[in-house]
Amino acid sequence: MSGTNPFDLSRHLSSEAKARVANPMKAIWKLIQQQPNVVMLANGDPHFSLYPIRKVDFEVASIENQDPVKSWTASRLSARTLLLTSSSSNRSALPLNLGLQYANGAGRPEAQRAAAALTQFYHAPPDHITTLTLGNFDGITKCLRLLGEPGDKFLADEFAFRAVTNAGVPQGIEWISVKMDGCGMIPESLEEILVRWDEGRGKRPHVLYVVPCGQNPTGSTLSLERRRKIYEIAQLYDLVIIEDDPYYFLQYPSDPNDSSLVPSFLSLDTDGRVIRLDSLSKILAPGLRLGWLTSSAAFHEHLIALTDSSTQHPHGFGQVFLAELLSEHGWGLAGFDRWVSSLREEYRRRRDFFLEEFERRIGGSGLVNARAPEAGMFVWIRVNIEKHPRYQNGINAGDGAAARARTNVAQLMQELFMCCLDSGLVIVPASVFALSGDSVWDDSAVPIEDRVYFLRATFAGTEEIMRKGLEILANVLQTFFAE
Amino acid sequence: MSGTNPFDLSRHLSSEAKARVANPMKAIWKLIQQQPNVVMLANGDPHFSLYPIRKVDFEVASIENQDPVKSWTASRLSARTLLLTSSSSNRSALPLNLGLQYANGAGRPEAQRAAAALTQFYHAPPDHITTLTLGNFDGITKCLRLLGEPGDKFLADEFAFRAVTNAGVPQGIEWISVKMDGCGMIPESLEEILVRWDEGRGKRPHVLYVVPCGQNPTGSTLSLERRRKIYEIAQLYDLVIIEDDPYYFLQYPSDPNDSSLVPSFLSLDTDGRVIRLDSLSKILAPGLRLGWLTSSAAFHEHLIALTDSSTQHPHGFGQVFLAELLSEHGWGLAGFDRWVSSLREEYRRRRDFFLEEFERRIGGSGLVNARAPEAGMFVWIRVNIEKHPRYQNGINAGDGAAARARTNVAQLMQELFMCCLDSGLVIVPASVFALSGDSVWDDSAVPIEDRVYFLRATFAGTEEIMRKGLEILANVLQTFFAE
Repeated sequence: MSGTNPFDLSRHLSSEAKARVANPMKAIWKLIQQQPNVVMLANGDPHFSLYPIRKVDFEVASIENQDPVKSWTASRLSARTLLLTSSSSNRSALPLNLGLQYANGAGRPEAQRAAAALTQFYHAPPDHITTLTLGNFDGITKCLRLLGEPGDKFLADEFAFRAVTNAGVPQGIEWISVKMDGCGMIPESLEEILVRWDEGRGKRPHVLYVVPCGQNPTGSTLSLERRRKIYEIAQLYDLVIIEDDPYYFLQYPSDPNDSSLVPSFLSLDTDGRVIRLDSLSKILAPGLRLGWLTSSAAFHEHLIALTDSSTQHPHGFGQVFLAELLSEHGWGLAGFDRWVSSLREEYRRRRDFFLEEFERRIGGSGLVNARAPEAGMFVWIRVNIEKHPRYQNGINAGDGAAARARTNVAQLMQELFMCCLDSGLVIVPASVFALSGDSVWDDSAVPIEDRVYFLRATFAGTEEIMRKGLEILANVLQTFFAE
Repeated sequence: MSGTNPFDLSRHLSSEAKARVANPMKAIWKLIQQQPNVVMLANGDPHFSLYPIRKVDFEVASIENQDPVKSWTASRLSARTLLLTSSSSNRSALPLNLGLQYANGAGRPEAQRAAAALTQFYHAPPDHITTLTLGNFDGITKCLRLLGEPGDKFLADEFAFRAVTNAGVPQGIEWISVKMDGCGMIPESLEEILVRWDEGRGKRPHVLYVVPCGQNPTGSTLSLERRRKIYEIAQLYDLVIIEDDPYYFLQYPSDPNDSSLVPSFLSLDTDGRVIRLDSLSKILAPGLRLGWLTSSAAFHEHLIALTDSSTQHPHGFGQVFLAELLSEHGWGLAGFDRWVSSLREEYRRRRDFFLEEFERRIGGSGLVNARAPEAGMFVWIRVNIEKHPRYQNGINAGDGAAARARTNVAQLMQELFMCCLDSGLVIVPASVFALSGDSVWDDSAVPIEDRVYFLRATFAGTEEIMRKGLEILANVLQTFFAE
């Protein structure tokens, strides 16, 4: 294969997306937009004077302090706050009479512009449009609907957030896992799958799902070099890249004086083949259920149509919150940046605390080791399960999903997980993330069923939780390996 | 066919719903729930001390006055209000530290209980569970995913909210229209379709979508007698009934002293075959994007799984709002009932104003007539298009979607719509709601293409809008028919 594929959306759309039928009212709306000052006897839109909600106030952290997260957590209830207000007054960035009315799938332009400004500031994408979502999970699953045809094979990391991959299975998407190392997805492994693809087994994968920063569960972050390679492969083999990046703002470069963030796939996307998903869950609060994705205009149109025919536009309170937060009366863009920079330092401190405790309590045991993650919330702990007295190699694991396993790693790790739980610690075994390899492509190496010797731990909790948790883990490991 | 079918969910599920794969983490959560006081190193849940949101205040209408909507709209900015507050304090009905954290698809129990209490109060369903939704559109389209298999034929009113029916088309649902009269869906027409069904044409329809009160667009309301008949037919032919009831609280019985509401399908549902959707859009504000559905436990489980693998749980701000509003610090159930009763009177006044203006300006013309709707927001205006000088009967309409038409009704109505628009009035022609009949079932009567002689008008607007709108309509009708 030579040269690159120009990006053509129609090659990638599911037949469901192509079969979408516009609401006949849309034609009427188009006519109306050309006609200003019409009298509307058309829509069942409750008049805003009948909304029983006059005003919404959000009391949020002040960002006046240089390190706002530190002062917020240190001063607690006495910490300074800022009041964001939305009413039907036109001083509001998104007045309630508009924010609480029906909208189309794009939501209110005030909220959309706020999200777009963030993306412009951090990624300066070449030629892209913002679509509001109900958070990244909603955004990703909409992308799966948009792109996924029964029988399609999509690509993902071999250790992945399975809630996402599983969400595609009922609609007929099959996942092909790409090998990883400590630095995330290996570009050469990705290319190998595509080079060696036999069309007799079905259409070559055309979608790559990737979490580039602080990947869940491995905590790995793709270097700029790897991103460039993966993007080139995507061009060569005509892949759409779904870039799910909830941990983008939580990056901890090894040089603490380096405040730069690794450029996103979106920022490299000259073709319009990247759909990037941004989330507020990790930097503000998960329950907001508001995020946005950034894509080419062609994807945007289809995503709006899909939104109009499923969830409809995001909730008004969230849109109002986002618009007010990023307005001049709120944090603004500069304040937002100050908050996330400060939050980054907070999580770096938590990460370092975790790693110090880990080192102090278990590091010398030789039973486990861990790499310092450069982003996110997770430490991927390698358990040296080969040292366990009952470790076995060369066994035949029998039938079923784990038929390729040649060791009892999975079984021992399950025992270890249960020992932790019995001792009052919840830590997640790698098996729940393992995307079973396709034996056709996974013939040259140790199958993933024999590599589930990891535990995922988070440093998102408090120091007390980390201290207690690692204390239990240290004790359990000693007992477990000494049996 | 004799006797009734016992309800069996598995006969109704789509293969997509049956193929849904649980997140492997779920198994871990089940284990954890049996283990109190564990230390969690598991989840990437930001600690609530890092949410930059301390407090949310919603300033809502006071319901102290006997007729709260009247005082709210009359006193405007000086109207009394009530402050709903949620913070992380346990005085909140749903504290922010919980409301803004991740939840499963069921959302927070506090919000779910608030919605369930409303349903219990108004419908006392025999044996059902509440599932939060992102509004009725989200709820309905989730039901379509749950029940709809490619090639399935679902039943709906012949004039329907096409955004809903169209949403099912890309996934392969075909719609069969059921005849209506001024009182809504005709049970005998429904039964005729099912009796005469030829299995050679595909599986008999197993889902009925119905808007029982103030149906959009016809404004019709099904009597209790019709509901009983339709429910019996559903039992006999094993239908699932999707009861979409956003106008339930806006019912205007002909006797103004009668404050009773027609019992819902849900309240009659001894079998568990009804899925009822409740919305806050028409009674509080559309932009809330929060509603709930009520179903059997078996449907609930599947809907939660679908929610977990698509939109995820509803937004925290909405859940907090609902929980606070219905708590003892908010309106409570009694206050809610007072608000909706008062709102009902407000919309009855608007409806009466509309009908009086209509009668005064156009009633004597003989060109149009309208029936007083007993619920909702819409008046369905019959245009006596047969009186138009260019009206033709007995024509052959040619190919395409309107091939069955034998008159030029559709064309004249389109002209009338454009004349209104040119005069500055937007009113919706029936054609955008017409669900094209299936010629196999629609052979004995005038096809719907010849019956699109209606206009849908709303009385949801202000008196000024209604007055202006009807003035334009009167003038346009005179000119249009006098040509």
